[in-house]
Amino acid sequence: MDAGTVELVETKLDQAESRLEALDIDCWLTFARETSEIPEPALALILGADVVWESAFLVTASGDHHAIVGRYDADPVEAVGRYEVHTYDESIRDPLRDTLEALDPERIAVNYAENEQVADGLTHGMYRRLCSLLEGTDYPGRFESSAPVMGYLRHSLTDLERTRMKRAAELTEELLAEAVEAWEPDWTEARFADFLHDRMREDGLESAWSWDGCPAVDAGSAAPVGHTHPGDRTVPPGEVLHVDFGVRYEGYASDIQRLYYRSHEDEAPPADLQAAFDDVRAAIEAGKAVLEPGVVGHEVDAAVRTAITDCGWPAFEHAAGHTVGRNAHDAGPLLGPRWDRYGDRPERMVSVGEVYTLELGVETEWGYLGQEELLEVTDDGATYFLPPQTALRTLE
Amino acid sequence: MDAGTVELVETKLDQAESRLEALDIDCWLTFARETSEIPEPALALILGADVVWESAFLVTASGDHHAIVGRYDADPVEAVGRYEVHTYDESIRDPLRDTLEALDPERIAVNYAENEQVADGLTHGMYRRLCSLLEGTDYPGRFESSAPVMGYLRHSLTDLERTRMKRAAELTEELLAEAVEAWEPDWTEARFADFLHDRMREDGLESAWSWDGCPAVDAGSAAPVGHTHPGDRTVPPGEVLHVDFGVRYEGYASDIQRLYYRSHEDEAPPADLQAAFDDVRAAIEAGKAVLEPGVVGHEVDAAVRTAITDCGWPAFEHAAGHTVGRNAHDAGPLLGPRWDRYGDRPERMVSVGEVYTLELGVETEWGYLGQEELLEVTDDGATYFLPPQTALRTLE
Repeated sequence: MDAGTVELVETKLDQAESRLEALDIDCWLTFARETSEIPEPALALILGADVVWESAFLVTASGDHHAIVGRYDADPVEAVGRYEVHTYDESIRDPLRDTLEALDPERIAVNYAENEQVADGLTHGMYRRLCSLLEGTDYPGRFESSAPVMGYLRHSLTDLERTRMKRAAELTEELLAEAVEAWEPDWTEARFADFLHDRMREDGLESAWSWDGCPAVDAGSAAPVGHTHPGDRTVPPGEVLHVDFGVRYEGYASDIQRLYYRSHEDEAPPADLQAAFDDVRAAIEAGKAVLEPGVVGHEVDAAVRTAITDCGWPAFEHAAGHTVGRNAHDAGPLLGPRWDRYGDRPERMVSVGEVYTLELGVETEWGYLGQEELLEVTDDGATYFLPPQTALRTLE
Repeated sequence: MDAGTVELVETKLDQAESRLEALDIDCWLTFARETSEIPEPALALILGADVVWESAFLVTASGDHHAIVGRYDADPVEAVGRYEVHTYDESIRDPLRDTLEALDPERIAVNYAENEQVADGLTHGMYRRLCSLLEGTDYPGRFESSAPVMGYLRHSLTDLERTRMKRAAELTEELLAEAVEAWEPDWTEARFADFLHDRMREDGLESAWSWDGCPAVDAGSAAPVGHTHPGDRTVPPGEVLHVDFGVRYEGYASDIQRLYYRSHEDEAPPADLQAAFDDVRAAIEAGKAVLEPGVVGHEVDAAVRTAITDCGWPAFEHAAGHTVGRNAHDAGPLLGPRWDRYGDRPERMVSVGEVYTLELGVETEWGYLGQEELLEVTDDGATYFLPPQTALRTLE
């Protein structure tokens, strides 16, 4: 296990303990199996390894760490050095029940969450299995979601995590600069994406979201917008290339959108295009102006939404921003409207040290003008985590 | 979307329809979100894309395919061309309820499973969310596990899937041959693993299970056995290097174990070591002799187990074999003992066309002698999917 992972696990276990204590939760239980098929996001933070057989990790507010794992999974867990390891061959039932009975926690936070996907690693089949293993005990009745613990661990970034994210963001810009430098007028969206994919493979970088849709590349006004896969459109002269892209560096993601104008007979961009670009830019600035510790997610969304609709544009049909961390869409507050599908996440408060996107776009006759910037919340406001795009860049 | 994926999705949707009909299940419902954080294994088979917002895929026995997805996820789903696509902005609730009401299925197979991890993509938080979206309807009461559908799709390999698996198996052997050719006496387990990882990166191959534990490399008698991470041990002269390794090629996995003897002053392996190797080899042959359509999983395990214990060795503390497919540990019957943690999987019947491992090992003074072979079930027996290791190979 590399030194970075050891440091991360140490810090996150400490964060977990203090968070459990603050929430008056006695025990955090993570139950998982075969995590190379369906990953349990907690294990990257509190273990740094995968498990194969049914495994339970119990972290208590008083600083106990128990790992109940199959015989052949024990070695990497022992190597972490932070768990009392209980192994089994045929069934996890007895050691799991014995450990719970010894701790006898009143409140048990379990790895599921309706409104926090990164804290929702427990599958429903595994939940049923867990209840069946504990049949006849009071423990299933004491279960609650561990989202307040796990979400906290995900969006409370350590220096190491922030350093990795900064590098991911820089690499994203660097690769985009290379792609734009190499660009030729006959490049399709797919060719642009292939260039980035080739460079990512060379540098051993993963995509920040699904490989086929990262980057999303929209060439000109004919391109559909969203989590699309790059197609065979080229950028018509006088129109705009829109790219939504992020890489993952040592487990940490980036997520930005950038705009490039393909000039038409060397003319500058039309004034109306420039004005539309500026409207989007100003809406991001409006969001930045209210982003600070204590603000509630939907208030930031409203600032961005009002700024763009006040310019006469239609409202965007998504949240104005989200946390970034291990995933491009990470845990914690959402800078989004109070829509059903967002649950309580727009009601949550922003905290210092979190990294957010601010993003929106408008559809124009030159293409989709989407911009997305990364910002870090400071003691009294927010600063750009990566220099923002302040002007249309040119493809040539 | 590449032609292979299109062909795969077509075939798997056809398989799903006929399977639903055979099981008298009206509708298969897959509910998912943010699948780049926690993947839904079904989507690789029936969609070939990821989704971000809450999404529902309904496949009926009568051949209807509905996809209910967020606005920005619609484009890749439309591109598949096999779904009637319903999009939403603020909430999936109405289109989901409307679609279910129009179909009004009596039996609804949902993407969770206690004993089939590859069919258990629905997280518990998402299960609760799904029930809440359908509150006041009868539909949650009609839910059952979709394991009999999804498991079937995973272990009923198409020609395309079998071709990819064959290539994954060949590549695994090729890379091992390269590593052994390059091996030097001062190579640690970690150096051996690094060599394979470097070659995998060069060739764009993923590991068949977690990167850090694939390959597992055990140098000599001092190495612990299991899902270990390679350490700083070298192979002592006169002892054995054991490797458990598999790559994933175009989404399909391999899983084999191989043994290499480091000779001591150019002497042949000790007769007792050779005899122990032969005992393990013979136990795999004993499993192969009973592996055929209709045999039940635990019967194959018993044949292997009896063969090795009859030679005076202790029984191994794992299943004698498992299916291989997209994952190294895939769906369907397990060639394992009737242990609690295996649920009903050892009770299931083997079918033609499935690919299994047969694997076991014994601990000796020369190191862990683990062998693992891949076999394909034929009409009246089983054949090796990849040539087995029939003799100790030499490190030099």
